[in-house]
Amino acid sequence: MGALDDGHFNAELENGVKLNCLDLGFEDQPETVAIEDAVKVLLQGLGEDINREGLKKTPLRVAKALREGTKGYKQKVKEIVQGALFPEVGLDDAVGHAGGAGGLVIVRDLDLFSYCESCLLPFQVKCQIGYVPSGQRVVGLSKLSRVADVFAKRLQDPQRLADEICSALHHGIKPAGVAVILQCLHIQFPNIESLFLDSSHQGWAKALVHSGSGVFENEFADVWGDFLSLLKFRGINVDKTQMKNSMQQCWCPSQCSSSAKVIGPPNPGMVTAVTSILSSLGEDPSRKELVGTPSRFVKWLVNFQNANLEMKLNGFACGRMDPLKQNGEVSHNKQQIYTELNLSFWSQCEHHLLPFYGVVHIGYYCAEEITPISKSLLQSIVHFYGFKLQVQERLTRQIAETVSSLLGGDVMVVVEANHTCMISRGIEKFGSSTATIAVLGRFSTDSAARDMFLQNIPNPASGRS
Amino acid sequence: MGALDDGHFNAELENGVKLNCLDLGFEDQPETVAIEDAVKVLLQGLGEDINREGLKKTPLRVAKALREGTKGYKQKVKEIVQGALFPEVGLDDAVGHAGGAGGLVIVRDLDLFSYCESCLLPFQVKCQIGYVPSGQRVVGLSKLSRVADVFAKRLQDPQRLADEICSALHHGIKPAGVAVILQCLHIQFPNIESLFLDSSHQGWAKALVHSGSGVFENEFADVWGDFLSLLKFRGINVDKTQMKNSMQQCWCPSQCSSSAKVIGPPNPGMVTAVTSILSSLGEDPSRKELVGTPSRFVKWLVNFQNANLEMKLNGFACGRMDPLKQNGEVSHNKQQIYTELNLSFWSQCEHHLLPFYGVVHIGYYCAEEITPISKSLLQSIVHFYGFKLQVQERLTRQIAETVSSLLGGDVMVVVEANHTCMISRGIEKFGSSTATIAVLGRFSTDSAARDMFLQNIPNPASGRS
Repeated sequence: MGALDDGHFNAELENGVKLNCLDLGFEDQPETVAIEDAVKVLLQGLGEDINREGLKKTPLRVAKALREGTKGYKQKVKEIVQGALFPEVGLDDAVGHAGGAGGLVIVRDLDLFSYCESCLLPFQVKCQIGYVPSGQRVVGLSKLSRVADVFAKRLQDPQRLADEICSALHHGIKPAGVAVILQCLHIQFPNIESLFLDSSHQGWAKALVHSGSGVFENEFADVWGDFLSLLKFRGINVDKTQMKNSMQQCWCPSQCSSSAKVIGPPNPGMVTAVTSILSSLGEDPSRKELVGTPSRFVKWLVNFQNANLEMKLNGFACGRMDPLKQNGEVSHNKQQIYTELNLSFWSQCEHHLLPFYGVVHIGYYCAEEITPISKSLLQSIVHFYGFKLQVQERLTRQIAETVSSLLGGDVMVVVEANHTCMISRGIEKFGSSTATIAVLGRFSTDSAARDMFLQNIPNPASGRS
Repeated sequence: MGALDDGHFNAELENGVKLNCLDLGFEDQPETVAIEDAVKVLLQGLGEDINREGLKKTPLRVAKALREGTKGYKQKVKEIVQGALFPEVGLDDAVGHAGGAGGLVIVRDLDLFSYCESCLLPFQVKCQIGYVPSGQRVVGLSKLSRVADVFAKRLQDPQRLADEICSALHHGIKPAGVAVILQCLHIQFPNIESLFLDSSHQGWAKALVHSGSGVFENEFADVWGDFLSLLKFRGINVDKTQMKNSMQQCWCPSQCSSSAKVIGPPNPGMVTAVTSILSSLGEDPSRKELVGTPSRFVKWLVNFQNANLEMKLNGFACGRMDPLKQNGEVSHNKQQIYTELNLSFWSQCEHHLLPFYGVVHIGYYCAEEITPISKSLLQSIVHFYGFKLQVQERLTRQIAETVSSLLGGDVMVVVEANHTCMISRGIEKFGSSTATIAVLGRFSTDSAARDMFLQNIPNPASGRS
């Protein structure tokens, strides 16, 4: 019946529920299998054992996440908008503008999530959309969000994303004009070498882009002023002047020269594997913007290669002391809690090959005759265990064990993180964060000690105002 | 082949993609059709024309939204958790707690959305989950979110939701213990009568509930202290003392006596229709907690009945002046912009029968010889147009036209709203808001006047710190 040749997203209901009748199950589809194979090549290229328990299903999880995260290629704006155009009378032009004829309509603060076409990493988007209805009709408000999502769920660049949302809405709604503003945040490309020299190499690459059609085509039109005012009094500060040239020359950090000095050229087998992933997602790997993407993604991955780091950092194992001996004899002197807060870290979730990042707080009791560990050594320990394929629970334990072996046993570690895998993959829990604790020695039995340490951790929200 | 009798959610992939092979399409399924029929009864009971353009597809949209919003009935926790348990070594108990043996793991600030079993309206949930791993295994962090969602997507009450999430995770992960804290917000039940007497009758019904298993079963256990500390330094202030009895006697405002004085008993046909919706969702309408739900939901709907209000409020039509006459003769005196900001409103989205609510800002030029309109009259106008099946664009226009007819033509109205339909229905854009503008007379041509008015609107974010 030919059904098996027919592509895999035959029918797609408005709410994203798929009815792939007569089709192969997701796991058996050739695209899924091809991505799985490619991910196995990548894991092996990183020197990982693909049969290790935590990694066994990683290829399938990555395939699911990538196909879910790029499902916009299969979605049609026309179908989304068509059923949601409603007649709505406006005002006579001589009287004013409102309703279906000229009254500006705005949807603010849509959280979106997209994949950077330059490096394949996800980036976050705050999306502001305005349009001016005409022809006595308006569109269902949620459709602005749905249409934006269709284009976010592709491999993108901020300006193109803004232009595509704007143009699709303009053609779908046929209004007097559409305005789109995107505030985009791209994870940095931490370079293990530079991180040890300069731990401030953190933060985000930012881009502020806009796109306008119809009455918004002229950037100096008054209607842009109305739109920006309506954003401003909700705390969204987009200045008209800012909007000029705010896009950096290379927004994706993978294209900045500083992060380019990776040891040697990328492994050709891994590059080929990423190229095959691009094809499986329905992209053309020879498209100009995608040509360098596979090697840039491999460079990112190689940052999280175990072997390289083990060699570089085996230094601090030498400093070990016997924790039990210390612990037994001098415990009465250990009255002082030393803390080192907000040590930043980067890591790669081994279940989804997606970054997670955040801060580590370390507290320890230290006998007087022992010099407290320097912040830079603690930061090195954090990076050492961060720059791997990891899970947060293990990272926390490993940091605690290492600090404990240096200092004699009474250690508490809190890791706070944001997981990219919690916001991509259709879960979209944008505001969520995770925390894990490890407690050793005195901290595991003395809740007052734990409390004293936890009270020291600052609340970033209260410092923000 | 019997496939058509077999229920409609045969296979369900982890990421919510359904493969209903050999099944009826969503629109033809008997549950969908039954809900559509019931919604038609409700619309007719409200005196609406079900063939009006904006309402034609409302029955189908409501059916989709309700079935999507209660899909948790068909989901199985076991399947979600099973593939995502990972071996992770812990520490020897004598040394401490970390990793897969005793290191507390927390996921914070999960935004959920549920339906109140008492009145069928949606309520918002901020969910905090902690668990203490044991048996040298941990669960994938995103599964905590997925499991919480399974129970949120049912008809719920806060305490039961917390208990079900807690118990499901406890059985699924078999950890040392699970803790769940939910901060729930329920929309108020605005009573049109009381609103005109007291416009402060706004805000939210709140409930703070918690549930604990294993090591969290004892509310005074130290581990609760660790959990709460880890929430606190991210700005989530849940006090241990607060957690006692914070649940009001009747959390759902529909059960508070004050909102019960609706004119006469609810229409029996409408009540029967809602009962049939409950059955179609797979619920048992005779379940104790659901017995009064249909009539409570009908009471809510009746608040938005056109006819009742028209009679009560036709008063202010009498005050009309001829806008053109006013406009032409005294325009040189109209130098002063009067503003009335943050007039609250409630409305019901006619596309989804879901509430939207927010504030209205009104600005107008007024000639000296005309007394400015009192705040209470403006508030009445806002409620008059709010308490209907509405769309925001029309509401904005209607308020502007009415104020203009009273004051002579130079009017600007901004409506800012949160739409429940933007966060239910699988769209889940929690932070988003909408704004619509109507401009009449001078405001439609004079961008400086618009700007002056918009500058007056306060930024609630800046006032929050």
